[in-house]
Amino acid sequence: MKKYLNSFKQIVGAQNMITDPFDLKPLNQDWQRFYEGKSELAVTPTSTKMVSEILQFCNQNNIKVVPQGGNTSFVGGATPVQDELILSLRKMNNILEFDTTTSIVTAESGVILSSMNDYLQTYRYQMPWDLGARGSCQLGGNIATNAGGLNVVRNGPLRNYILGLEVVLPNGKILNLLNKNRKDNTGTDLKQLFIGSEGTLGIITKANVLCSPIPEQRQVFFLELKDFDETIQLLRSAKQFEQLGAFEFMEGRILQRCLPFNPQLKAPFEFKADKYYVLIEICGQQIELEYYFERLLKHTEQIVFNQNESELQAMWRWRESVPENLHKMGHVLTYDLSIPPDKFEWFAEEIYPERKGPYNAFYGHLGDGNIHYNIVFESVQEMHKEQERVEEKIIKLTKNLNGSISAEHGVGQLKRHYMEIQKGKETFGYMQELKRLFDPNNILNPEKLL
Amino acid sequence: MKKYLNSFKQIVGAQNMITDPFDLKPLNQDWQRFYEGKSELAVTPTSTKMVSEILQFCNQNNIKVVPQGGNTSFVGGATPVQDELILSLRKMNNILEFDTTTSIVTAESGVILSSMNDYLQTYRYQMPWDLGARGSCQLGGNIATNAGGLNVVRNGPLRNYILGLEVVLPNGKILNLLNKNRKDNTGTDLKQLFIGSEGTLGIITKANVLCSPIPEQRQVFFLELKDFDETIQLLRSAKQFEQLGAFEFMEGRILQRCLPFNPQLKAPFEFKADKYYVLIEICGQQIELEYYFERLLKHTEQIVFNQNESELQAMWRWRESVPENLHKMGHVLTYDLSIPPDKFEWFAEEIYPERKGPYNAFYGHLGDGNIHYNIVFESVQEMHKEQERVEEKIIKLTKNLNGSISAEHGVGQLKRHYMEIQKGKETFGYMQELKRLFDPNNILNPEKLL
Repeated sequence: MKKYLNSFKQIVGAQNMITDPFDLKPLNQDWQRFYEGKSELAVTPTSTKMVSEILQFCNQNNIKVVPQGGNTSFVGGATPVQDELILSLRKMNNILEFDTTTSIVTAESGVILSSMNDYLQTYRYQMPWDLGARGSCQLGGNIATNAGGLNVVRNGPLRNYILGLEVVLPNGKILNLLNKNRKDNTGTDLKQLFIGSEGTLGIITKANVLCSPIPEQRQVFFLELKDFDETIQLLRSAKQFEQLGAFEFMEGRILQRCLPFNPQLKAPFEFKADKYYVLIEICGQQIELEYYFERLLKHTEQIVFNQNESELQAMWRWRESVPENLHKMGHVLTYDLSIPPDKFEWFAEEIYPERKGPYNAFYGHLGDGNIHYNIVFESVQEMHKEQERVEEKIIKLTKNLNGSISAEHGVGQLKRHYMEIQKGKETFGYMQELKRLFDPNNILNPEKLL
Repeated sequence: MKKYLNSFKQIVGAQNMITDPFDLKPLNQDWQRFYEGKSELAVTPTSTKMVSEILQFCNQNNIKVVPQGGNTSFVGGATPVQDELILSLRKMNNILEFDTTTSIVTAESGVILSSMNDYLQTYRYQMPWDLGARGSCQLGGNIATNAGGLNVVRNGPLRNYILGLEVVLPNGKILNLLNKNRKDNTGTDLKQLFIGSEGTLGIITKANVLCSPIPEQRQVFFLELKDFDETIQLLRSAKQFEQLGAFEFMEGRILQRCLPFNPQLKAPFEFKADKYYVLIEICGQQIELEYYFERLLKHTEQIVFNQNESELQAMWRWRESVPENLHKMGHVLTYDLSIPPDKFEWFAEEIYPERKGPYNAFYGHLGDGNIHYNIVFESVQEMHKEQERVEEKIIKLTKNLNGSISAEHGVGQLKRHYMEIQKGKETFGYMQELKRLFDPNNILNPEKLL
């Protein structure tokens, strides 16, 4: 990399280069510190033109590039594998326009998700997706990974809200796919290729996003159900609610084990080990509490609903504290799976027939068929001993159920070796053909995804 | 084609071949009778395997193929240009499954849209898109054209609801992209390529579609507004309604001219030539009439709302009768455009500065930024005299406004020569690369779109 420093300086200027190993360290590591690269240079371009010139230069000189947004990937998708050039979008952080007639926002890809929301609040709009990393993840990274999160059951995936993109291709060409039309039927929609492609086909520099009105009201129900079948019956009804904002699932035996870790938190029920719990959020305009309560009552009499904002927060806190508490109980293998919702209990029992102890927990976005399946071990040794057997079985079962090994976290480095099994040889082959079409020299985010 | 008849007979059987010119005629023509091909053979395969064998044979023998669903295209997208083989999906019309937990329906691509709705009604669900051709258009054709229609303002485009596809490629390979997971983040989503590609990349044989609950209630408001600015202010407010089902725009001067053609139809207002009219539909669960009325009142006092189903139908009929009445007034040039909603009046004035008479009418889905812009001429001669000048100007203005020359009707044969202007050279080039990747011998739907 050393011999190229002067060339990069001419393209981006010294003020947009990071070479100090101390400053580079956080960019070389993912936030979970599972992965660490050896990059010697990060550049922070301030314009699309600069991104284009960087990529053109890299392509000519066969310099590998890893695009980086907020670096919040769970799968090592945004950190270098070797000594790639880090291309950070952080300085391309301008919100360019909000169109009050169409509710479309146009922004550069380095804007942080929560900054987008701060800006949109004035207009009573918000971004149509939300995730835990909202304070640091960036627009471009969100789009490149088709980020999931908390609102999918209501709003659908992020992809549905991306109307236009500006993308710089590995050869430096700028593809102008910006678009503020809600309807545009003029052939194959090229921008779809870049959504969820994890920075392997091009670098997103700008986007047009259709925003959602901020809901006027929120109402949370916490329900206790006697078994998993009853839970699935409830899901079938709740999916009919047009204001359904969340349908989150937790096991009683796990919530019980969470009690000691949440001493300050008021529990909506006396959690029972053999019961199942669901948090339903209704959000929108003009919520009729009675309407929903009556319909939920058909499934269980054990219903609590929040009377004020702090009770709402407390109920959500029970759901959100599950993953962090599991990590306090031991060493955890985590899987982010999509499988048919009615198969989840069966799935967990197939992995561990006894289902005893805190081991083998499933919880999460049951409304989307997306469950976080976690296995807790008492020691690292035990975890490593079991990992291979368990993982092989999970991949096989997921494949047999036509599920997905990555519902929302993406593939990155972590799940790359399972991609051919997941997609099938034919489909995976065409994904590789697309890579060859857009990035024939394989300079963009190498050793990820494909 | 004659020399191949025996080969096709071996693949599909005599009962799945149409060779009689009388029977072939309606398949060679589009329904508007603008286009007519000279195909001598149509095949009606009954399975994906058969489709695969047909395409493999055609690819080996360089036989061009036009896939055909309900043949309801507005742009000549489904009729042969020359003597292509017509591959009709009409016999692949099985609905395979409805999953009551996930509300996902799986069906073959030859199922008619209204048959899908008849089937789903039992479960209190419906298809997430609706269009005038519902009685004859088919699932596969809808997907291949990313069909628009009446529900886009609420539900978004068809694309958002397609979770999985089975596609037969021109070389006969079957690409299994079927998927019943709402969340699946495992790289570039290959199925997106086929949605809206108008049968140029592959033939869709099956699909998984996410269905919508049938709305419990519908409420229509008819509003009179003093100018176009007021209309746009109203649109900005109405877009905040989570139950907004339609926002349809009409000009008073056009509605006035429609009066003699709708003698039986009760008018919600005494239409005035210098006013603007909007139909707003609110649909969903638990509609609060007062809530909406109060908010609409901020924009105009001239509001009528339906008290019963027949008034609702009458109000919709005023909107729906506009295009057919325009055709009764003279000879019509029609354009299906997406441009920024607040630019519509300006746009129409740019084409015809005086805006007098019934000439130069715009109406339609203003809520989506999709307007049907029609120009009425007294004679065919006059129309032909003006067509070139007008069309050139429309294309140029639309391009300058970053709009779309096809909001929902597609490209087909009709708008093919404008595609490079619409997409720009770079993007159009990559669309052609994709065509070469999937269909190197250019056998599939030739002389359409690209």
